[in-house]
Amino acid sequence: MLCARISLDQGPRYALVDGDSYAVLADDPMFGDFTLTGQHLASSDVSLLTPMIPRSKIIGFTGFNDAKSVDDLHVYMKPNTSVIGPEEPLIIGSDEKEVYCRSEVAVIIGRPCKDLRAQAVDKVVFGVTLAHSLLRDKQARGKAELSDASCALGPYVAIGEGLDFLIDSINGEQQGGSLPFTIQELVAYASSLCSLLPGDIILSGSLSSTRVAPSSVMETQCDGIGILSNPVLSRR
Amino acid sequence: MLCARISLDQGPRYALVDGDSYAVLADDPMFGDFTLTGQHLASSDVSLLTPMIPRSKIIGFTGFNDAKSVDDLHVYMKPNTSVIGPEEPLIIGSDEKEVYCRSEVAVIIGRPCKDLRAQAVDKVVFGVTLAHSLLRDKQARGKAELSDASCALGPYVAIGEGLDFLIDSINGEQQGGSLPFTIQELVAYASSLCSLLPGDIILSGSLSSTRVAPSSVMETQCDGIGILSNPVLSRR
Repeated sequence: MLCARISLDQGPRYALVDGDSYAVLADDPMFGDFTLTGQHLASSDVSLLTPMIPRSKIIGFTGFNDAKSVDDLHVYMKPNTSVIGPEEPLIIGSDEKEVYCRSEVAVIIGRPCKDLRAQAVDKVVFGVTLAHSLLRDKQARGKAELSDASCALGPYVAIGEGLDFLIDSINGEQQGGSLPFTIQELVAYASSLCSLLPGDIILSGSLSSTRVAPSSVMETQCDGIGILSNPVLSRR
Repeated sequence: MLCARISLDQGPRYALVDGDSYAVLADDPMFGDFTLTGQHLASSDVSLLTPMIPRSKIIGFTGFNDAKSVDDLHVYMKPNTSVIGPEEPLIIGSDEKEVYCRSEVAVIIGRPCKDLRAQAVDKVVFGVTLAHSLLRDKQARGKAELSDASCALGPYVAIGEGLDFLIDSINGEQQGGSLPFTIQELVAYASSLCSLLPGDIILSGSLSSTRVAPSSVMETQCDGIGILSNPVLSRR
């Protein structure tokens, strides 16, 4: 099941993806159920929003190439003010020379949890989507992660389809190789660091990143989720 | 005017501090006004909660001793899940050797803002409170800032009293010296890094920190706000 969040005249609504159309849901499926309103819209007629509102926090990891255990990973946080949706521009500073974008599978937490075992992670996950996450060089002193429009989510949330998602291609280039840790291990580890709340997002990491410049486009594809595409613009 | 958030049978309520009693407010003053319900409670009869719910993020800075400009500061974020109230225990890991607590003046943002000038900061501030913020050594790889019960706020929010608050004493020791940057400069700088939302909290920094161990107590006093006191406990 794929769930979208769409912009309608009456405000944002959630909808199930049904071929080339969206079947509008009555409620936020994270806190309600999947009751349909009966309204159907052609996908060409509506614009997508970020599929889930990050209510508390986004947690990401770096250092996958050197990490022998999850404990070796570095952790960063992004605020909900950094989040944008599909097709919205990722924004980089006009004076920034080295900005990298990571394509990641993003796990959306559905239930409050703390100190999970990896085997229990499936029960707290609401769904899975894709992320484009901007990181700057180390000179940025922790500032890069905070910036507005530095974390794109979408296009859809895969719900009830398990956690075995791998990114298939980035900007048309086939991807190979798997991360040293499973999504279950990473979510369990994040839950050892702090309480996770519904709507929290765990970025499951990447082995490489793509250097981006203004006017480039980031496009990440994952079988079972779709294609997340975001132009890159320079802040004026 | 000092505002508290208190625990009542019917749930959390906001209240104005009126000598030794609390005058209960009808609404959250950040989004309503200061209409009183007429209910008065002796302060000895109620327990205090964290005076403001951090809705999106807490932003703090380190590196004040070496910073020539705000741009030299390092930035960290704490999630809302890290926040506790007055008298609640700050929690450190049972295997942690070096944990430090910083006593800081905390600014609560009242209006959405971005790219403020320092002169405009007063207009977006809701109020000022105190914070105890736990930081670990650098080996922690960014994990320390995330942990639950690592950021205490309180006891009260000073509203409409300006921003010129300095910490007077920490654990009974008089404090001297002023930070190299004003609260206005720090909030303006935070707003250059990302959008600030109502309920966001900016920790205005400290020149030193206090090493804490289980069973110790942190007590920070600031004229015009009160005394924030938190025991330190070890996570079992």
